[in-house]
Amino acid sequence: MPKSDIFLTLVQDPSGPTLGKGELVYRTVARAILAGTLAPGTRIPSSRTLADDWRMSRNTIDEALSRLLDEGLLSRRVGSGSWVSESVTPHPALAHAAVMRGPNDAAHRALRSVSAAGNRMIGLRSRAAVPRIVPFAAGMPDLNLFPVKTWARVASRRLRQNGRDLLEYMPPLGYQPLRQSICRYLATARGIACDASQLMIVNSSMQALDLIARVLLEQGDAAWVEDPGYPNVRSTLAMTGAAVAPIPLDEEGLSVERGRAICPEPALVHVSPTFQFPMGVTMSLARRAALLDHAGRCGAWIVEDDYVHEFAYGVPPLTALCSLDRSERVLYVGSFTSTLFPSLRLAYLRVPRMLVEAFVAVRSQLDDHTHGLDQAVLADFMDAGHFAGHVRRMRGIYRERRDALVAAGQRYLPQELRLVRVQGGMTAPLHLPAAIADQKFCDGAFDRGKLILTPLSRFGVSEKANGVLLGFTALEARAIGPAMKKLGQLYRDARSLKKRR
Amino acid sequence: MPKSDIFLTLVQDPSGPTLGKGELVYRTVARAILAGTLAPGTRIPSSRTLADDWRMSRNTIDEALSRLLDEGLLSRRVGSGSWVSESVTPHPALAHAAVMRGPNDAAHRALRSVSAAGNRMIGLRSRAAVPRIVPFAAGMPDLNLFPVKTWARVASRRLRQNGRDLLEYMPPLGYQPLRQSICRYLATARGIACDASQLMIVNSSMQALDLIARVLLEQGDAAWVEDPGYPNVRSTLAMTGAAVAPIPLDEEGLSVERGRAICPEPALVHVSPTFQFPMGVTMSLARRAALLDHAGRCGAWIVEDDYVHEFAYGVPPLTALCSLDRSERVLYVGSFTSTLFPSLRLAYLRVPRMLVEAFVAVRSQLDDHTHGLDQAVLADFMDAGHFAGHVRRMRGIYRERRDALVAAGQRYLPQELRLVRVQGGMTAPLHLPAAIADQKFCDGAFDRGKLILTPLSRFGVSEKANGVLLGFTALEARAIGPAMKKLGQLYRDARSLKKRR
Repeated sequence: MPKSDIFLTLVQDPSGPTLGKGELVYRTVARAILAGTLAPGTRIPSSRTLADDWRMSRNTIDEALSRLLDEGLLSRRVGSGSWVSESVTPHPALAHAAVMRGPNDAAHRALRSVSAAGNRMIGLRSRAAVPRIVPFAAGMPDLNLFPVKTWARVASRRLRQNGRDLLEYMPPLGYQPLRQSICRYLATARGIACDASQLMIVNSSMQALDLIARVLLEQGDAAWVEDPGYPNVRSTLAMTGAAVAPIPLDEEGLSVERGRAICPEPALVHVSPTFQFPMGVTMSLARRAALLDHAGRCGAWIVEDDYVHEFAYGVPPLTALCSLDRSERVLYVGSFTSTLFPSLRLAYLRVPRMLVEAFVAVRSQLDDHTHGLDQAVLADFMDAGHFAGHVRRMRGIYRERRDALVAAGQRYLPQELRLVRVQGGMTAPLHLPAAIADQKFCDGAFDRGKLILTPLSRFGVSEKANGVLLGFTALEARAIGPAMKKLGQLYRDARSLKKRR
Repeated sequence: MPKSDIFLTLVQDPSGPTLGKGELVYRTVARAILAGTLAPGTRIPSSRTLADDWRMSRNTIDEALSRLLDEGLLSRRVGSGSWVSESVTPHPALAHAAVMRGPNDAAHRALRSVSAAGNRMIGLRSRAAVPRIVPFAAGMPDLNLFPVKTWARVASRRLRQNGRDLLEYMPPLGYQPLRQSICRYLATARGIACDASQLMIVNSSMQALDLIARVLLEQGDAAWVEDPGYPNVRSTLAMTGAAVAPIPLDEEGLSVERGRAICPEPALVHVSPTFQFPMGVTMSLARRAALLDHAGRCGAWIVEDDYVHEFAYGVPPLTALCSLDRSERVLYVGSFTSTLFPSLRLAYLRVPRMLVEAFVAVRSQLDDHTHGLDQAVLADFMDAGHFAGHVRRMRGIYRERRDALVAAGQRYLPQELRLVRVQGGMTAPLHLPAAIADQKFCDGAFDRGKLILTPLSRFGVSEKANGVLLGFTALEARAIGPAMKKLGQLYRDARSLKKRR
């Protein structure tokens, strides 16, 4: 057994360049932190212990650890050593290189034993979204503005009043009063007709998609996804055995015409028509009609992921596919992750009536139902108007931040860069010229400028957009200008370096 | 659209006997309630409206509704009609006959579209566990004794103190302090060595099993399960594409010898060795060694579901497989569903270190992590000693109830019936003679005696035990005698009816 209790093995990536010892230590620890295997708050052993464990000089270890301190992945307290920073948001797709220590035969068995689907998921890399306050980390709501005291008050009242009634198993569809509150909300905020008997509370949009795929797809059934699109949509569908068909977008959203050429008869189509993630495109009404029409012809189900319709910065969002649908083929997914807070893990799925039975049967045998207490608290929070009030307030604030982002882009970015003025959502794409490869640019921006940029190429399969995704919702408006100025400078540096070569 | 808003279509089951109109109404509504599609609190339209909708006489409707009232599925309030009782625990496996109203082509499409795996799950029937206070509903903790005020106080303090820190995404493994608390608990209460970096918080034991199967199994890989055993284990494994191999039990637990004959090389084995569900058998130490040995030979993973080791009514439970395991092949699952309360939806999974990476990668792409707030509350609840105190108290109370059950059995049941004096857990099997078919006996006991009995045959695949499972934990000791007296009488009635025929 090693002396330290972090159990990391230093392993050279056989497919990558051979690393120096310090780099190997740095990468291994960084990846374990980003993967969540070294969780926030975990104590890091002394450099003496690590030097013993890894048979290296203390200098090498110290150097690697101070890089991690500089980058905010570790924190140091005088007299008590180093710790994994509490502010780190782990990003497990990076876990692939953080091989855990174990008997060698066991480690080999582990690698052999993990299913093909599991191994595909381990292999999916992505740039880490580290501390959320860093510009321009993508997709984080501004949690400093969440009315946590109101939530606590509502929760406290509910638990004291009739907490005992909430302890039992709930129906697989979820807590009835919350379902009713969400139905009222969907009717008023989105014009969607929904009965509580066809709404299922789920833990997250991805759980909804997983459940949909398991209830409706057979092994090998084809599923259209947007390309570029959210990688977890692809991996979740692939995990259930679907044949994922990435379909390009145009300025009206997912191209039905291209889809018909690539994969004529999908069993399922996944779209985010309101503000497509990550490109921010709104699917036109004509395209919505064409999609419904094609789905009708080939009997495909449509999953409408309407994850941030609440954050529309001009006119309200277009009519949902779900409302246009006359043949009950749309499954509509909404979530409270961005409108309230991520650790809440509450989302919802509206299913066509005739599928309720199947979803209830499958859900009840897989994981029964979503956690109960927060469902009751959320129902009260909505019924008291706190949800609508919070969303309205955040919409105004995020709109100001979007405006600040666009203004800063005009001021600090060279003409050749195109920053999309998104009509809603929490991120904006910034297109880069082909000469500047986005992944490398993002790496450099993190190393040299402490900016967290997400490369657009990460989202594409056959359609590799080259650019970066800028999150603006967790950044105060006054912080956006300086960060954009830095981004402009980093770009100019990268461009001149390119030219000099 | 129908005038009523409960949207139930009356559909004759083509595989069953043709029902009269009243029976059809009764079964349709009952099943919709048990399925959770008509949730507790849902208003039932007036008999006039239903008579219009379904084109029947009001008398027929009234008669069916009063049966539902008698059975406690509906409640009536003077002047405001009927409602689905708040005390009903929906049981969705019964949903199969509650076909929802929809356009006919859509309904047909739905049936065609549901995946083969989904359809198998819909088809799995089980007797409903209706109101939990009814004797002998199985597997419910006595929630009247849960210290809900303490929970509320802990929750309130935690949210007010640093609620904001809990709003962000958590690591896929879960909230670090809770993982540490559980590790300390496992070390002291169960002698299991576990590091927080190898413990994943999950929503339920079934989610843990689902995740295990998805990370470790390929389509068609064989999985041993106990026969008789928990049906959701079989359906969850089957849903992921595993070939489920039911292996008979003997008095030492799952028979490794029979397993080797039936399916020599499983990729995974699922067992509940402490108190096997539903038979209550404890796996002997020799059998544990034999199982580990065989798993080692064929490279199988073992899932140890230790769901109620806390409720041992004599000596502490035998050493866990997980502690005996020298080659890191056991995945250990525990849950707070029975020790605290079901709607909490918190359980945990200890994985071998070398699998942490794979589990983190897959979990993070499927549903990210378990809900956060309750994890923090539970950590505080455990750290303050409330968890240990509650478990200790309930263990004493449940032991008294087990004793009351055994005493009542000796007093009121004829000699030919064998009630197992279980050493732990929440249920006890009562074996019936072959002449009395358990499912029919349970139906009669519910109709004539308002007893909820669970037929043992429901749990078996090739090994059909004939008997009933008696839950005793949610029943006060003084209620057990009268219920057992009734059960004895129902049995004598069934026996003499059988003889007369």
